[in-house]
Amino acid sequence: MQVSNTEWSLAEKKVAQEVLKIAYEREVKALIATVRESAGSITALEQIWQLHDLLSSKRYEIDGKYDDRESALIFVFAQLVKEGWLYMDELASLEGAKRAKVAALTHM
Amino acid sequence: MQVSNTEWSLAEKKVAQEVLKIAYEREVKALIATVRESAGSITALEQIWQLHDLLSSKRYEIDGKYDDRESALIFVFAQLVKEGWLYMDELASLEGAKRAKVAALTHM
Repeated sequence: MQVSNTEWSLAEKKVAQEVLKIAYEREVKALIATVRESAGSITALEQIWQLHDLLSSKRYEIDGKYDDRESALIFVFAQLVKEGWLYMDELASLEGAKRAKVAALTHM
Repeated sequence: MQVSNTEWSLAEKKVAQEVLKIAYEREVKALIATVRESAGSITALEQIWQLHDLLSSKRYEIDGKYDDRESALIFVFAQLVKEGWLYMDELASLEGAKRAKVAALTHM
């Protein structure tokens, strides 16, 4: 399966940007809710360091994940679908071959 | 001023441990309050990373600060007094020379 050399039309690139933005906003919203909830129940230093560990890990993950280079998009979409930040039907405007590649990767 | 080779009696070591614990609990309590307050007002990812930066810095600082080795105690107390986690009158059970050293260091 050829993935990284997939070609994207201008219209598809626009869709890709929009879809990435939707997933990003979902993930950020969920992280904000998690941080608020965790912080609200903190009563000991150990819990603060657990929150710190979580944020270190999320920061590293989010910084790297939303890669909008054409060569990365199929992989990025598959990861976001697997993680639940994106739904396959939100990719409906992409051509079938691309959707099939994303779907295939979500099962790997 | 000789500081790191200060000698500590058993009674003073006990006082030192208790006083360190008081300061530690104050600092932890304040940090918990700060984290709760910061987290409660977070609405954007950038604020989460600001909280993360704060926790990284506090973790590094707290991990190193509460050094209870005899050679470190005078310095540790002086730092805690300067930072407001400890009050000079809480060191009243220590001998005058030690208190004078702590007081002198708080002005440096």
